[in-house]
Amino acid sequence: MTRISLNADVGEGYGLWNYGDDEELLKVVTDANVACGFHGGDPDVLRRTCATAAAHGVRIGAHPGFQDLRGFGRRHVELPRESLVNDVLYQLGALAAIAGAEGVAVNYVKPHGALYHSAVAREEYAAAVVEAVRLFDSSLPLLCQPGTRLARHAEETGLRVLAEGFIDRRYTGSGLLVPRGEPGAVIAGHDDAVAQAVRLAVESTVEAQDGTVLPMRVDSLCVHSDSPGAAEFARATRAALEAAGVSVMGALE
Amino acid sequence: MTRISLNADVGEGYGLWNYGDDEELLKVVTDANVACGFHGGDPDVLRRTCATAAAHGVRIGAHPGFQDLRGFGRRHVELPRESLVNDVLYQLGALAAIAGAEGVAVNYVKPHGALYHSAVAREEYAAAVVEAVRLFDSSLPLLCQPGTRLARHAEETGLRVLAEGFIDRRYTGSGLLVPRGEPGAVIAGHDDAVAQAVRLAVESTVEAQDGTVLPMRVDSLCVHSDSPGAAEFARATRAALEAAGVSVMGALE
Amino acid sequence: MTRISLNADVGEGYGLWNYGDDEELLKVVTDANVACGFHGGDPDVLRRTCATAAAHGVRIGAHPGFQDLRGFGRRHVELPRESLVNDVLYQLGALAAIAGAEGVAVNYVKPHGALYHSAVAREEYAAAVVEAVRLFDSSLPLLCQPGTRLARHAEETGLRVLAEGFIDRRYTGSGLLVPRGEPGAVIAGHDDAVAQAVRLAVESTVEAQDGTVLPMRVDSLCVHSDSPGAAEFARATRAALEAAGVSVMGALE
Amino acid sequence: MTRISLNADVGEGYGLWNYGDDEELLKVVTDANVACGFHGGDPDVLRRTCATAAAHGVRIGAHPGFQDLRGFGRRHVELPRESLVNDVLYQLGALAAIAGAEGVAVNYVKPHGALYHSAVAREEYAAAVVEAVRLFDSSLPLLCQPGTRLARHAEETGLRVLAEGFIDRRYTGSGLLVPRGEPGAVIAGHDDAVAQAVRLAVESTVEAQDGTVLPMRVDSLCVHSDSPGAAEFARATRAALEAAGVSVMGALE
Repeated sequence: MTRISLNADVGEGYGLWNYGDDEELLKVVTDANVACGFHGGDPDVLRRTCATAAAHGVRIGAHPGFQDLRGFGRRHVELPRESLVNDVLYQLGALAAIAGAEGVAVNYVKPHGALYHSAVAREEYAAAVVEAVRLFDSSLPLLCQPGTRLARHAEETGLRVLAEGFIDRRYTGSGLLVPRGEPGAVIAGHDDAVAQAVRLAVESTVEAQDGTVLPMRVDSLCVHSDSPGAAEFARATRAALEAAGVSVMGALE
Repeated sequence: MTRISLNADVGEGYGLWNYGDDEELLKVVTDANVACGFHGGDPDVLRRTCATAAAHGVRIGAHPGFQDLRGFGRRHVELPRESLVNDVLYQLGALAAIAGAEGVAVNYVKPHGALYHSAVAREEYAAAVVEAVRLFDSSLPLLCQPGTRLARHAEETGLRVLAEGFIDRRYTGSGLLVPRGEPGAVIAGHDDAVAQAVRLAVESTVEAQDGTVLPMRVDSLCVHSDSPGAAEFARATRAALEAAGVSVMGALE
Repeated sequence: MTRISLNADVGEGYGLWNYGDDEELLKVVTDANVACGFHGGDPDVLRRTCATAAAHGVRIGAHPGFQDLRGFGRRHVELPRESLVNDVLYQLGALAAIAGAEGVAVNYVKPHGALYHSAVAREEYAAAVVEAVRLFDSSLPLLCQPGTRLARHAEETGLRVLAEGFIDRRYTGSGLLVPRGEPGAVIAGHDDAVAQAVRLAVESTVEAQDGTVLPMRVDSLCVHSDSPGAAEFARATRAALEAAGVSVMGALE
Repeated sequence: MTRISLNADVGEGYGLWNYGDDEELLKVVTDANVACGFHGGDPDVLRRTCATAAAHGVRIGAHPGFQDLRGFGRRHVELPRESLVNDVLYQLGALAAIAGAEGVAVNYVKPHGALYHSAVAREEYAAAVVEAVRLFDSSLPLLCQPGTRLARHAEETGLRVLAEGFIDRRYTGSGLLVPRGEPGAVIAGHDDAVAQAVRLAVESTVEAQDGTVLPMRVDSLCVHSDSPGAAEFARATRAALEAAGVSVMGALE
């Protein structure tokens, strides 16, 4: 039977500052990318988020980022490979301890923001992320876009990859994302985005920007958490997937 | 045979800033209280410290503190119990992941600075520290001064306590420390301090400020790491202990 | 003619995290207590806030706090007097530079959160805040509750005090606030709160918890910025004041 | 009469962490680049540094950096122009307030570390730094290497430039620095470095890596503060300059 996971970034508040409608999102998604404190998510936020995820049966993944609260981990920081390895390790361990207090485990790792972008594009960042995950727990899968440097590096070193697909981003003819900022990078209409989600899940294909249909097998679809109406859109996507006969369940279930 | 452990705070640098002569101290002590990033110790520092400790066969303990780099964890922060639990948990997990990358484990927990002071004196801080350790790993011992609120709370909840003694601090007649700032709080002469160390290890007694001799069984003696000549004093203390027939070895060996 | 100022805390977001409905509040209040980066308010947030305040003709005051983003400056930090002086100075200068880029000046100082509470209650914190303001610009007034240690210390050292009144907090018979947590500390009904505001402005009196009517001359009323409907309540308060013939204008106009 | 200034980075400790031998350096140099809190230098450190500089008659310059304590401002951070403008403004104001408490003013601005490198090489970073200085005080000079993008941008917008020369760095034939990491980037011998300093001051020339002699008029020579023996080398350099008849005095005296 066709199955797909829905993942979303959560736990990204800090202190009194909230970010995203975690409560509602955690009712819809199956996998939660939980911030680890470096770009967002203080220990209290992480604890609450893990508790809520656990209550809804949502599996937890670690969502480490650059150490940059001010920039929310969205600004590239140029740092040596060993520092990145250690920063990611530190975050994985911290989240695992918090999750453990709620009786749940970290199931996978998905880098955040500028770290994700650097790791899919640059060999040394990919290598550092993979090394950190392997040092922490070599059985943990990495959730990332297939065909990228990060995915290839993970696979070459024996780390399992969970392939991530994007609902509202347009793909190039070579199966990568049209860079943000370029025209057509984001699929404007909700219906078109939902249609792409269903197609990815049911047919394992995507229609690229140039009209070609590409094979694109994905394990999980990324649901944005930081736009107005994010939870509502997530619900609509899930409903459409289920209506198309897709079983929406955790990537590792 | 009489045995004692020597513990010291290490890993308290941050970025380019160094603190203490970790290299030399780790050649002398048997147990290393490694900072966890909140009062000092970034992930790179922690990694290097764990590697050095492992190379010297020194056991690692977690040394969590208040989240206060500016104040080095020496300023009291008033925070709710659940925040303290989560902050300590976060730090324990982070250090454990870094230590694991060097093939070693966290063996015990010793709170740092103002957190230590708050936890030995105030019930809610003691309870929070104990709860965090128990949530993380209920088999981990807590290294702290016997007879304090923290030690009693740990014991009451089934957490093992490693009793810590002080080499250069004067004790009151009730077995607690003469508060810093009061006259005679610190033992000025090195010889007197070393003599107190030997007496604690060999006789399990201490001569209090009022001249009475108190029973004082301790598992580990705290060696200061932040005074000039700290490593040299540690070596002298260790030599005197060994000359007195004491086996200097890790508290958990 | 009777006049009153309305002040509110603004500029307390950080990075991508928002806090409070600054846009709407700055259309209603006359004086803006702008965060200075230590408890909230990064340089970008401060710049935008100063620009918006300037556009609405709202005067800017500095709202320094403890260096504690995680706790939003609401957790007491125990720190030496000289550190507090320097921390406040640093914040005043930083905000003044940002405000200057928008062509406006810092007009007064109001401490934030736990720093406010410490400064109204403890002599050394009051002295430090006053010293910092005097070192920065001894002509700057301090906005704080009359009758407190902070107000008295300011007055004794020649610093001008702008007396602050509270709209929805109940007063004790001695003219101080009923501590939060005690029953009746907060005036529950909006109408009662607005009535207290009008009475403070028009009659310079307040009805204390014990029913006595106290003289209470205030220059400015504090409008909360962090409750749902804060802007709406601010508008209602302002309308009621104006309907009662009060001229709502900046405290220093 | 030939004159030259000697500048050094100071005030870069943080909390209990020290960095560099500020006490000794401030007895030798004429101009002090004082950190502003973002890469190093907390408010207490800044206050002490300003006091010491003032006591020795050393003029203070602001030394703003990227907001990155962990990386000591030496890691490039990719951030939007307006954020950089605001970050620099914030730091300038903060230091000015601290300096003012010691009765001294900020006399010039020299960007730190990765910010310096980005600003000499990239137009948008150069523009942001210049904009921030102009917004703060358009009469403040910028201390930087002549011939760089930063220097040119400053001059084009009417900001005064103080030309900086390097004592122990080798120049290329086009008058820029041989990049660190390339062979011969750093002048290994102290005598050769001192000789370059004297030549820069007396003849306003430098012998480039390729043997050509370039005109190089500089106002100030940069003395490293973070190498062992930094203060001793600074004293030797100053003595050699004075022996060669150069008047060592502040760039703005």
